[in-house]
Amino acid sequence: MKTFDFISSDESAQYYETGYSCDNAIILKLQKDIFFITDSRYTTEAKQNLHPRIILMESRFLIDKAIEILKTAKIKTLHFDSTKLSVCNYEKLRSSLNHTELIASPNFHQKMRIIKSQEQIKLIKYSQYLNKKAYKKFAKKIQSNMTEKALYALAKQILEDSGEYDLSFNPILGINANAAKPHALPSHTKLRSGNLLLFDAGIKYKRYCSDRTRTAFFDGNALHFQKTQKFKEKKLQKIYDIVLKAQESTIKKIRAGMSGKEIDAIARDIISKAGFGAYFSHSTGHGIGLDIHELPFISSKSETIIEDGMVFSIEPGIYIPDKYGVRIEDLVVIKNGKAEVL
Amino acid sequence: MKTFDFISSDESAQYYETGYSCDNAIILKLQKDIFFITDSRYTTEAKQNLHPRIILMESRFLIDKAIEILKTAKIKTLHFDSTKLSVCNYEKLRSSLNHTELIASPNFHQKMRIIKSQEQIKLIKYSQYLNKKAYKKFAKKIQSNMTEKALYALAKQILEDSGEYDLSFNPILGINANAAKPHALPSHTKLRSGNLLLFDAGIKYKRYCSDRTRTAFFDGNALHFQKTQKFKEKKLQKIYDIVLKAQESTIKKIRAGMSGKEIDAIARDIISKAGFGAYFSHSTGHGIGLDIHELPFISSKSETIIEDGMVFSIEPGIYIPDKYGVRIEDLVVIKNGKAEVL
Repeated sequence: MKTFDFISSDESAQYYETGYSCDNAIILKLQKDIFFITDSRYTTEAKQNLHPRIILMESRFLIDKAIEILKTAKIKTLHFDSTKLSVCNYEKLRSSLNHTELIASPNFHQKMRIIKSQEQIKLIKYSQYLNKKAYKKFAKKIQSNMTEKALYALAKQILEDSGEYDLSFNPILGINANAAKPHALPSHTKLRSGNLLLFDAGIKYKRYCSDRTRTAFFDGNALHFQKTQKFKEKKLQKIYDIVLKAQESTIKKIRAGMSGKEIDAIARDIISKAGFGAYFSHSTGHGIGLDIHELPFISSKSETIIEDGMVFSIEPGIYIPDKYGVRIEDLVVIKNGKAEVL
Repeated sequence: MKTFDFISSDESAQYYETGYSCDNAIILKLQKDIFFITDSRYTTEAKQNLHPRIILMESRFLIDKAIEILKTAKIKTLHFDSTKLSVCNYEKLRSSLNHTELIASPNFHQKMRIIKSQEQIKLIKYSQYLNKKAYKKFAKKIQSNMTEKALYALAKQILEDSGEYDLSFNPILGINANAAKPHALPSHTKLRSGNLLLFDAGIKYKRYCSDRTRTAFFDGNALHFQKTQKFKEKKLQKIYDIVLKAQESTIKKIRAGMSGKEIDAIARDIISKAGFGAYFSHSTGHGIGLDIHELPFISSKSETIIEDGMVFSIEPGIYIPDKYGVRIEDLVVIKNGKAEVL
């Protein structure tokens, strides 16, 4: 990967480049120097966490400080992520830096991180391992008549493990009709015998995200988050089996060299041929790493060629409005040209 | 407030204008019509929550759908928040809309919301009431030898009240030296007799944020989050009393017609005169509402004139690196020209 000078305020880019991040910082990578500019609320913690060679600068006006540094450094070209930089900060840079060419590079930092190192794969794998452990623990504590909100609170508590881990996103948890919304918010609906429960959750381990979805049958006493599920309703069982087949077949058929959209098509074809194409409303998967959603995208528009070292989710679903939804999600890494489940 | 046509993808603006928000949506306010554009993951929930007159549009490519609507509507001028809109989306709008003038309006939606209605003040007040209740409950459960991480997990659990409330931000919780970082992350440091605990937290009630900070002395058995605190160390007690005086005097002296920076100066002068000016490293306060930080800012640069109906925090602090930090924060509303604590 060719290196270039850049400006970014993205937290994942900050963390990757410097070992620390916060919600009000700008980093500048200029030749061999990396500057971390933040305000006084964060400087003590920054000092303790930044890699030794990072240059920490304190300022209340981050973009002005960045401009000051850029002027002194006489930078000729500077890349920025045009999907993230605000018009306001862009205009300030443009009007202040007469001798610097600003180059729009959409998602450049995610592109730099698209192939994971062995170390990064290990971290994501361990993050998912902790996530799976939390699923097991959560399943054991689920009881009849708990509301979605109570289940949500319980799940978060277990996933966070006494404050040890941050969540990679707020868990998605839906009973029956609420599971038909791919990104449902928890309600006061109570879990009853015979209900379906969709659960989509992940944590962060050393900042690397995990992500997993299971859809489970609650028999009135207990449920489990394994892939083999027995539902009472025939149509629901049929839908579940289709999603499961789509998920597992896709994982088996993934090969390095395919594009994101070819992989998406494998899952989509199985669901469409079974007659539920209209009910699989989102893409098949997304890359994961420091960001919960990053490159490569596994969607019907994705031209990205899949290579060894890429890590992404495979998560087809079928959602029948006002009735129920089924989604099954695992993470895979591409290794020796094939997908291995993490 | 003059109304104008605008585009926004800010969640607070979405919620305020339409009754619903999600992390992938664009709203367009065009004359009397409001369009809510989102992807299929959110449409079921959007339908259930959007105000009746809002026009819901589903698309995977939000900005392209927005451009399509704008072209049809033949809009002459369109406002956008230049502190939020990305360069990428701005360029798409600019190159596609030949007959529309795009007007950069930094923070326009926060400006629209700067004076709160009676109903909004009630919601913020109730949010803070729930927050205070959680503080009391949390204080009762604090025990010797709990780590910051464990205290953090416990606090979140109590604040969220079985999944009932979202947090307005992740609580800030620091023991002694960690409290010297205004925005500390929880560590494995254990709470011991004689320690200081800084706790800064808030929840959301019907989307309206609360925010409060207390600094407390732990005597080995218990602590409380009232303002009267007795520390063993003389210098610390002195610092605490200065911060308390700065906070309470400022609240007493606030008058409608003052600027944000005049109010900031009241707190800053008290701390500076006591010899700790260099250790009060952040601004005195911030507006609060749908956003945890919104207008007006109470900082040394803020020219905003304070008026009846504005709601903001007053939260001076003194931070002695590697030793301890003290911050005391309440929310106030301006009523009949004076500040009333919420």
